Amino acid sequence: MFRLYWADEAGLPADDRGLAYGDGLFETIRMSGQRGVLLSRHLERMVRDAGRLGIEVSRKELANVCVEAAQRFADRFKADGWILKLTLTRGSGGRGYRPDPGMEPNLLVSASPMPPAPDSEGVAADFSKVPLAVNPFVAGIKSLNRIEQVLAAAELGPSLFEVIMADRDGNLVEGTRTNLLLRQGGGWVTPPASSLAVAGVLRQWLLERLRQRGETVTERPVTVNDVLGPDCQGLFLLNSVLGIVPVRTIAGHDLPVDSGLATIFNPLETLE
Amino acid sequence: MFRLYWADEAGLPADDRGLAYGDGLFETIRMSGQRGVLLSRHLERMVRDAGRLGIEVSRKELANVCVEAAQRFADRFKADGWILKLTLTRGSGGRGYRPDPGMEPNLLVSASPMPPAPDSEGVAADFSKVPLAVNPFVAGIKSLNRIEQVLAAAELGPSLFEVIMADRDGNLVEGTRTNLLLRQGGGWVTPPASSLAVAGVLRQWLLERLRQRGETVTERPVTVNDVLGPDCQGLFLLNSVLGIVPVRTIAGHDLPVDSGLATIFNPLETLE
Repeated sequence: MFRLYWADEAGLPADDRGLAYGDGLFETIRMSGQRGVLLSRHLERMVRDAGRLGIEVSRKELANVCVEAAQRFADRFKADGWILKLTLTRGSGGRGYRPDPGMEPNLLVSASPMPPAPDSEGVAADFSKVPLAVNPFVAGIKSLNRIEQVLAAAELGPSLFEVIMADRDGNLVEGTRTNLLLRQGGGWVTPPASSLAVAGVLRQWLLERLRQRGETVTERPVTVNDVLGPDCQGLFLLNSVLGIVPVRTIAGHDLPVDSGLATIFNPLETLE
Repeated sequence: MFRLYWADEAGLPADDRGLAYGDGLFETIRMSGQRGVLLSRHLERMVRDAGRLGIEVSRKELANVCVEAAQRFADRFKADGWILKLTLTRGSGGRGYRPDPGMEPNLLVSASPMPPAPDSEGVAADFSKVPLAVNPFVAGIKSLNRIEQVLAAAELGPSLFEVIMADRDGNLVEGTRTNLLLRQGGGWVTPPASSLAVAGVLRQWLLERLRQRGETVTERPVTVNDVLGPDCQGLFLLNSVLGIVPVRTIAGHDLPVDSGLATIFNPLETLE
């Protein structure tokens, strides 16, 4: 079980380990009324990745909180949707970094309006100056350790939707809040899950869907050349709240835009 | 300026970015009564590293808070000292990762008892299974992104004081809460500051002091062989709260213990 905090009532205790050490993880779920986009996948990822951090949480109890949150928040937002955020931390207190195995987790639940929709005809992106250093022990986990993404996001502006971060070998890993999917040679290419800071639920859903349709999906390191070279037939940014976003221009270089992929993912069809 | 929160009164707001993204940093200062060990260095590091994160804070206002905190907390603890913790975050709210330049930082101030003193005759250490992935953009900053240290600290136990984490090349970087100093060939060796997750204030103070005494200090990558090989004349763990801690045994391998170094640092002589 966990101790439940509603963000519209109170913050977490001052000795919460999520604040102290980033000792926790979060999910942001696009809601429409009282139902959520890819909700099961969000809950499954949180339970699985909490387990990787040694934080035990029941999927059923998380799901119950989502129902309660939907009843509480849905009416405060317009019909076009809202964002449900779950922040799960290891709990309060303890001596220094060392986690106490008997600790009761804290769960903070908050709601916010939908962000502005990205331009469906494509967005502008750039390569970030901030590299990504992914520790294999926490690769893919949407943990509360996001200072690299914050520093990279400082490069964003009104005319720059996303910046792509590279690892120390120069391979492109992901955007600050999006995973990458490249169209090349009639197939699809994406960096492998083991290399990612955050393995997104839309990315996983989309890879499965493409494979079900018989399309070729290759998980391998992606280079700047893959994106800027003549073989690139399109670059897409994936985020379960924002959807599948085509990149129209990157670092001033125009990319082919095909909005066909966006039609594969209709958020309203994945509501649960 | 910043918004001040006393941890014995309240936690931070639910939308604090320190909790949401680890968007902040902290200092833990050993206090004796109303004075602090290496206090100026702690404050200088916080101001400098906050600046690297784009968080502006005045050293003078931080120092004033320390005076206020000392008056508030000192009497609650015994004469052997206490710990003052400053947690500075970018502030509350904002849209996603992207930091708002006009944001007012939050400062959370808390106090806790001194941890148990390490065995002055030496402690047991081991090599951690958890690697460290240090991003050069945040190297050395005591940011709130400490999930790697938490996972490594889970390996600690009553008979294991510290575990040493290595980077992906296998070079030893630091302990979960300590920097490393090796005695070798009559001189001193320590991993370079640019490679560190946290560049400790005691480490910096000690390197300066050793150099003032005419001793040879080399900053270079440190390997497992440096520690386990015949040239190792001693391994020391550095932490401004715990002091200079000799390692008696690492991974079951006995090391020479010389307590001479510990006498260089007398915390009570560095009180400010």
